[in-house]
Amino acid sequence: VLDERLQRTAEAAKSAGCDWAILTNFDSICYALGHAPFIETALSPFAGGPTTAFVRADGACGLVAPNVESAAAQASRADEKIIYEGFAYDHRADIVGNYAAAIAEIKTRLGIGGVLGAEPETLPATLAASLGAERTLDINEPLRRARATKTAEEKALMRRSAMAAAKGQEAFYEWARPGRTELDVFAQVRAAMENFAGERTAVAGDFLSGKARTAGGVGWPISRVIGLNDPLISDLAPRVSGYWGDSCASSVLGTPQDGYLKLFNTAKRALDRALEIMRPGIVAADLDGELRRSVAAAGYSYPHHSGHSIGASVHEWPRLTPYERAPLQEGMFIMVEPAAYDPDIGGVRLEWMIEITATGCRPAAPFEHRPSIAA
Amino acid sequence: VLDERLQRTAEAAKSAGCDWAILTNFDSICYALGHAPFIETALSPFAGGPTTAFVRADGACGLVAPNVESAAAQASRADEKIIYEGFAYDHRADIVGNYAAAIAEIKTRLGIGGVLGAEPETLPATLAASLGAERTLDINEPLRRARATKTAEEKALMRRSAMAAAKGQEAFYEWARPGRTELDVFAQVRAAMENFAGERTAVAGDFLSGKARTAGGVGWPISRVIGLNDPLISDLAPRVSGYWGDSCASSVLGTPQDGYLKLFNTAKRALDRALEIMRPGIVAADLDGELRRSVAAAGYSYPHHSGHSIGASVHEWPRLTPYERAPLQEGMFIMVEPAAYDPDIGGVRLEWMIEITATGCRPAAPFEHRPSIAA
Repeated sequence: VLDERLQRTAEAAKSAGCDWAILTNFDSICYALGHAPFIETALSPFAGGPTTAFVRADGACGLVAPNVESAAAQASRADEKIIYEGFAYDHRADIVGNYAAAIAEIKTRLGIGGVLGAEPETLPATLAASLGAERTLDINEPLRRARATKTAEEKALMRRSAMAAAKGQEAFYEWARPGRTELDVFAQVRAAMENFAGERTAVAGDFLSGKARTAGGVGWPISRVIGLNDPLISDLAPRVSGYWGDSCASSVLGTPQDGYLKLFNTAKRALDRALEIMRPGIVAADLDGELRRSVAAAGYSYPHHSGHSIGASVHEWPRLTPYERAPLQEGMFIMVEPAAYDPDIGGVRLEWMIEITATGCRPAAPFEHRPSIAA
Repeated sequence: VLDERLQRTAEAAKSAGCDWAILTNFDSICYALGHAPFIETALSPFAGGPTTAFVRADGACGLVAPNVESAAAQASRADEKIIYEGFAYDHRADIVGNYAAAIAEIKTRLGIGGVLGAEPETLPATLAASLGAERTLDINEPLRRARATKTAEEKALMRRSAMAAAKGQEAFYEWARPGRTELDVFAQVRAAMENFAGERTAVAGDFLSGKARTAGGVGWPISRVIGLNDPLISDLAPRVSGYWGDSCASSVLGTPQDGYLKLFNTAKRALDRALEIMRPGIVAADLDGELRRSVAAAGYSYPHHSGHSIGASVHEWPRLTPYERAPLQEGMFIMVEPAAYDPDIGGVRLEWMIEITATGCRPAAPFEHRPSIAA
């Protein structure tokens, strides 16, 4: 039995008029074949060679990967796996030559040809040359739509990634103390997520303290020392087994002033509103508009999307934006992140991962949003 | 005045018979232009578009980068900087179209043409198509050689990255305790390096506990609980301001047995020997052989290189291997990492970054190698 993600990838290729999907983005390779190598030091920092997945319109598939990714490749769902030498100790590896030879080999084994669907933003020139396709089409759009609702296997992975993020937020509430740096607290938060995952995890997101930084809303942690009564934003997106969790907590370390509570309650009300109205059929732009109106009623706004789908990529289609006319569907996992920012007070953004069910929605791994942390 | 790295890149292009160097590896872009975006969640996880540097044989230069890398691009040394939209909140960004338009624009502004020197392992097909070069050569080899000795600016960066790694090793000695997981200790180690750097840093290397894992020698930390008298390996390679530090400490948490002390003393003796004999003119393979013989005299061996150069990439040319005939030169920064492994006892690898001086060598940021940590 074909994994449903592989099947959907094959169908996306077919619907786009392609005989083959040629995948070169790390997230789509993970989606189609379950190949999830580490990415925390960029892709293949040692071996430097490309990774490529091939999926035929009937679901036959193969993978070409450098030897640093060998363990991940062996654990993948690919029918044919060709590992090429990108790194060796007793001679210098000819990365480009070895990759080209691997492509030639898999082309023969699988009979790759005809119309190819590719991801042009990451397609290597050497791959395009080796394949010598008669015609290559952009397959991004059908792939994006195929991935919008999650399969049964993915639902379990998404809940686990959301739980990893929730563990991070618990550690955030526990470890934030005046006198520690943002990086100190972030280290504990990260350890909680990594211990849950059982391995190092890539982490996207934001970690901010103080009025100016939280009012700006985005940025990675720095060595700023956290002070008493500082507002904090902890936006945590850990990648576990190739799937991203996400979440955002905002809190004052000490005693929140009235102005801060107003920001907090504004964002909380909008998030609560989302949980009331999210269900199959609601249009992404309408949900986005509803959340913006809720925040605007209190006199605030936010300069970013209201949320986004998530999976093997941290941002997926659809996003909650004014231009997105797609209706939500059962099986989507949507990040919802309304916010309120005030340069005189700071920023509050509250985010949960929300699963769309047959009749409504439910948070994938809810954690408490607290306006303050005891200092 | 041209930065010396830019000048060396230009000369490498010229020596290879190229009119332009077209750079697409993140480390060579950093080297030539000082563009050092974050890489800890792979390259551009949100915007997904390529980054490209252009260096003419006379040193004129330009950079094309997606808007998520805007701050890094503005801080770079590029004469011409074109930031294209890879991510937007109020519409969907056309990544491939925007990148192609940016390439067309910089091609016109800088007059790019003639013979191009490229890095074929990462050259995007869309870039190759947009440039429409009459001829493209592989520029990796001359670039590799140009980067082997460090410029004055790089020497300061290398010492700082080595110091970050040393701070990590101090934290390793301080935080390793029975009952903590590898990931717990690694989090503190990482926090020490990140607080020193003032920002999140990508970290390569290995972090291992117990007989079996340390005897294997490589691997990232997991949730294994560290036990009393466990052997530990802490190989830390943090990337600070685009330059990598590296180092390896090995220690027993508790009381080392005689067999472990023999492994430790074997690796230490080889590292001490390296410091005695490293100087300009010694051939990499001869140094490698000397270290292997030193370890073999005690009855051990190691299945990896004896070391490697380091800089904007964590592994650079030359490496300390039996096949490398390059002589060491003043201004090289060489990682030296002799080791001894025994499946019945565990593994010990001891590594310092060593700078080659006019007459000999010196460690860039020495830290103490200790056979044991008090439990």
